[in-house]
Amino acid sequence: MPRFELEYPKEPYSTVHRKSSRATYALKTIHGIVNGSQLVHVSFQAPDAPFPAILPMIGQMGSFERPSADVADVLDLYLHGYVSSRLMNISRGAESSGSSPGLPIAVAASQVDGLVLALTPNAHSYNYRSAVLFGHATVVTDASEKLYAMRLITDGIVTGRWDGSRVPPNAAEMQSTSVLRVRIAGGSAKIRTGGPHDDRCDLGDEAVLDRVWTGVLPVYQTIGAPVAGPYNRVAQVPDHVTAFRDEFNTDAAELALEALKEPGKEKE
Amino acid sequence: MPRFELEYPKEPYSTVHRKSSRATYALKTIHGIVNGSQLVHVSFQAPDAPFPAILPMIGQMGSFERPSADVADVLDLYLHGYVSSRLMNISRGAESSGSSPGLPIAVAASQVDGLVLALTPNAHSYNYRSAVLFGHATVVTDASEKLYAMRLITDGIVTGRWDGSRVPPNAAEMQSTSVLRVRIAGGSAKIRTGGPHDDRCDLGDEAVLDRVWTGVLPVYQTIGAPVAGPYNRVAQVPDHVTAFRDEFNTDAAELALEALKEPGKEKE
Repeated sequence: MPRFELEYPKEPYSTVHRKSSRATYALKTIHGIVNGSQLVHVSFQAPDAPFPAILPMIGQMGSFERPSADVADVLDLYLHGYVSSRLMNISRGAESSGSSPGLPIAVAASQVDGLVLALTPNAHSYNYRSAVLFGHATVVTDASEKLYAMRLITDGIVTGRWDGSRVPPNAAEMQSTSVLRVRIAGGSAKIRTGGPHDDRCDLGDEAVLDRVWTGVLPVYQTIGAPVAGPYNRVAQVPDHVTAFRDEFNTDAAELALEALKEPGKEKE
Repeated sequence: MPRFELEYPKEPYSTVHRKSSRATYALKTIHGIVNGSQLVHVSFQAPDAPFPAILPMIGQMGSFERPSADVADVLDLYLHGYVSSRLMNISRGAESSGSSPGLPIAVAASQVDGLVLALTPNAHSYNYRSAVLFGHATVVTDASEKLYAMRLITDGIVTGRWDGSRVPPNAAEMQSTSVLRVRIAGGSAKIRTGGPHDDRCDLGDEAVLDRVWTGVLPVYQTIGAPVAGPYNRVAQVPDHVTAFRDEFNTDAAELALEALKEPGKEKE
């Protein structure tokens, strides 16, 4: 674990200019937001395409060289996606051309923690946590690294699910699974917490204050009761699923309430 | 309202190749996913930048020329974002250069409706709704169109909030708000519903079937109890907030349960 908090460098492409007081470059914060997101959005510019491409994918931060690495350490992003064959092919092309260590991509993960209702529409806001990473993506070809990433991603969705399912993958499954490793060049996060902040002129308007409700609607994801599939034979929902669901729901609701606190006013 | 279901053209940049049976090009479906998302991710290639840019923004589909247009009609995407000044400046540049009707951007909105737990990690999946739109973004300069978009976006977050807050915006608020209009060139959506689908060899393995639980964990967003802000004076949470919250929570949980049905097996 690093002794000092590691930060990504502020590169021109990664520096937050607007509301920069909400920005952080700390690896721990950025990686935490990515790992806590069920989906990330991946963007890249395909050659000769009139628009950038953007895809939802599943991603987790990890280190194959040092699997015990902490979330605050230097990590790679491993990506797995259902719509990734085009990305994979372009990435393979970028690799083989030798001109680049991979395909330049941008990855975003964002969570809404609350709807902030102010006196005037312009002062409305979200409480949110948003992370962006920039890096170069290459296809993972080493079988043991691919296995590492498959486990990382599976357990990133439901903790303990890898061991709770039929593993290891057979040769056909290993072959059919594509995993990208993204070497991170830079990144940033933005976080907004607290209540509404209206302009002084509205805060001095008694009629407006007497009429308009202001506050926050907390927003969080919920995992509902497990629904067994048509060929399920295991009567009892296994502990790893129950424990994951309980922890997820508790953490999600707590995060939305934590986000109500003004920045810098957290309890020690 | 169109008599036939309108679809976006299948352009090379917008055609879904992988799991294309899950794809749709229907405007109604795509626009519905975008309008139901609290955040969209916007991607564009900044000139000379080594990576694409990607930003979370707030977006709603609408038509200033025909405000009564249905969600299934041809619509523009209006974008408002807290980190958009760079995008806005580049967009202004693209406009003034005359070489293009705006900045080429890609916009994605994705919702996870369930975690699909199968026998083997490879067959794990999400139930999800994901939409991508491609188009050209320009800054809205006309005051009445900007006002239209501000109301559209505000009511897109909390139905009825525009009239429930201090409106209309004053001159300074109109000046400080930037809105982008995206003329849509193409788009697609992908939707996955149903339970787990394992390979035949695993479905024939009695030991695996007896050991591994399979099914779906429904996922949905929840809006918690409203929390009044520090300068709120309105004792009772207003009806538009309560009604919005009730409807949001009911719809979100229902969508996650709807997503459990196998495609093509919906009740009439």
